[in-house]
Amino acid sequence: MTPFAPHVYADRRRRAAAQAAHAGLDGLLVTPGPDMTYFLGHTPVTTERLTLMVVPAAAGTGQAVGTPDGGPDGIVQALAVVPRLEEHDLRLRAVGPVETVAWADGDDEHSAAARLLRAGGRYAVSDSAWALHVLGLQRALPGATFEPFTRALPMLRAVKSPEEVARMAAAGAAADAVFAEILRRPFAGRREAEVAADLEALLREHGHEQVDFTLVCAGPNGADPHHEPGQTVIREGDTVVLDFGGLADGYGSDTSRTVHVGEPTALEREVHDVVRAAQQAGVDAVRPGATCQDVDRAARRVIEDAGFGEHFIHRSGHGIGLTTHEPPYMVEGEERPVEPGMCFSVEPGVYLPERFGVRIEDIVVAFPQDLPGEARRLNVSSHELQIVG
Amino acid sequence: MTPFAPHVYADRRRRAAAQAAHAGLDGLLVTPGPDMTYFLGHTPVTTERLTLMVVPAAAGTGQAVGTPDGGPDGIVQALAVVPRLEEHDLRLRAVGPVETVAWADGDDEHSAAARLLRAGGRYAVSDSAWALHVLGLQRALPGATFEPFTRALPMLRAVKSPEEVARMAAAGAAADAVFAEILRRPFAGRREAEVAADLEALLREHGHEQVDFTLVCAGPNGADPHHEPGQTVIREGDTVVLDFGGLADGYGSDTSRTVHVGEPTALEREVHDVVRAAQQAGVDAVRPGATCQDVDRAARRVIEDAGFGEHFIHRSGHGIGLTTHEPPYMVEGEERPVEPGMCFSVEPGVYLPERFGVRIEDIVVAFPQDLPGEARRLNVSSHELQIVG
Repeated sequence: MTPFAPHVYADRRRRAAAQAAHAGLDGLLVTPGPDMTYFLGHTPVTTERLTLMVVPAAAGTGQAVGTPDGGPDGIVQALAVVPRLEEHDLRLRAVGPVETVAWADGDDEHSAAARLLRAGGRYAVSDSAWALHVLGLQRALPGATFEPFTRALPMLRAVKSPEEVARMAAAGAAADAVFAEILRRPFAGRREAEVAADLEALLREHGHEQVDFTLVCAGPNGADPHHEPGQTVIREGDTVVLDFGGLADGYGSDTSRTVHVGEPTALEREVHDVVRAAQQAGVDAVRPGATCQDVDRAARRVIEDAGFGEHFIHRSGHGIGLTTHEPPYMVEGEERPVEPGMCFSVEPGVYLPERFGVRIEDIVVAFPQDLPGEARRLNVSSHELQIVG
Repeated sequence: MTPFAPHVYADRRRRAAAQAAHAGLDGLLVTPGPDMTYFLGHTPVTTERLTLMVVPAAAGTGQAVGTPDGGPDGIVQALAVVPRLEEHDLRLRAVGPVETVAWADGDDEHSAAARLLRAGGRYAVSDSAWALHVLGLQRALPGATFEPFTRALPMLRAVKSPEEVARMAAAGAAADAVFAEILRRPFAGRREAEVAADLEALLREHGHEQVDFTLVCAGPNGADPHHEPGQTVIREGDTVVLDFGGLADGYGSDTSRTVHVGEPTALEREVHDVVRAAQQAGVDAVRPGATCQDVDRAARRVIEDAGFGEHFIHRSGHGIGLTTHEPPYMVEGEERPVEPGMCFSVEPGVYLPERFGVRIEDIVVAFPQDLPGEARRLNVSSHELQIVG
């Protein structure tokens, strides 16, 4: 991924430090993965060895311990606990300077990290931090409390900057190109796994450096929303749900379309029309003042009114950015407001057990500067039920 | 990965249930990843949605809750908490029957899981379980205690069956073929990242379905043991550390070799000879009665005696199986004995800052049936310092 300018990462850390203070936290504990990429412009691979970046809460809370600030320009200095054998590489690859505290194999790495933390502190930790490490930190610092980012600061990465939205739009355009190409390939007579491999190769050809999923769910398999593509041979008459996405230049795409091999039945057309209307209703619900659950309710209402409510068995969407699934979630009970710059999926579906499924999914950005008060789709391929061969 | 026979997974669960009881645990909590593959023959992808397999401790401890046993043949029934939208697919793909407890988006998934657990229970949880989930379980079940597998039952997957060792040997043979081919490719004038891409493609050609790392560390970059290959152009006179591995039919390979572009200097030869002798000493130390730290000490001793001790900055090895890094670790302080069927790396190295590095790594299996009392290498390409062009 092409890094942003160094001030972008310093700004993110400074903003996070302020949010942490506001939330009554002593700091953020960031492990390898998307959060580290967000704050450091680089992440090592997640392993059994602890790498832990500490973002202390902003000064003024009277609680911060560590190195909250470095230098006259007020840039928050990055600070990380790192395995000795990876210390030099992390310093080289991070965007901007990092203060490192190295530990060696055989050391108690969690105690090494605990020395940078406050004994009775309250910390938010990356959702995907390993149990090995979060339980190790609890053991090393028994008076401290830990909460996952999704609970403590769920909206930390949810609002995207214009630079980030531009990358999301490029990823969406790549996904549109992939869908256009897959429509020209044969479906009937091929295995789901073969079409899935085509989707993966096409995503890579179109600039995705990481492919997270390429679901191809034919006929009755479409009734499982997360069916993993397998050896099922696609046949004439099948409805096929496609759901594919990954990261291009660091930012996510995620598209679902439902296609049909040959002429669909009246029921297949009806369900597709319902899902299409529900998807549009979900996008239309992205209006100033709307909460995340309003988006879910709007999409769900259409499906319920058509009599398929019991067959829409998942939430209507999820945030997307440096990962393909992250807060905010478009789900009943999520009462946080949709804010300008949030990027998320709107993806209702209907799943008829042992028959077929239909899902249509677009990524949208809420209230972009040139379209205030509305959502813009970042992938825009047609919602018509496409007939494939 | 080709699944083993159903009884293999049932046997593993039964054995784990007994070990859990012996360790005073109420059960094991298994999340998607290698542990789930180990117990179920299949794993969904790790996501923000909770999938949790529960392996209750064997009956007789008076603590087990759940479904420890199903049927007259004494096979331990698999039990999993699963997102509703993935329930059917999990049941289809798991080897053998699974009792599932589904939760729907918007539910409190951690409370759903907690209802299967004992309020004051003690549970071991997969090392790579997300903080989001382990902290969620703690919140839902505040009286219970949780420990990572590596602390509670570190040797759970450490001893491999002959069937598993056969797959490890096949992965090792594939890695040998990859090394033979990369030696015939050009090094000088190419970027590290290009050679790394070759290694990745070769691993896939030779049957690896997953590539975990392809390190190419030229000249001074070799002094960083985990240097990520980048834009550095390899030059005549460079020492180049190669470290590559992944999973073939579910089981791991991990090989390091150090090559030289053109004629090495006397120091480069000397260091290579020392590391080679250290690697041999580590393998020779795998004798009945040896502990894991004995293997580390034997390899380290050779490097220390040669005056390079301060430049060997990591442990001597790690277990390998369904992952490329897992217990047992060959490290000072690990006093558990090496047992027949354990598979692990022996990989000493010397890292001279701003100059170069050398590492040699083989995977070995301890005390196979036809070689009692010794270790057998599972990758066997030459330890000679290979000269490349």
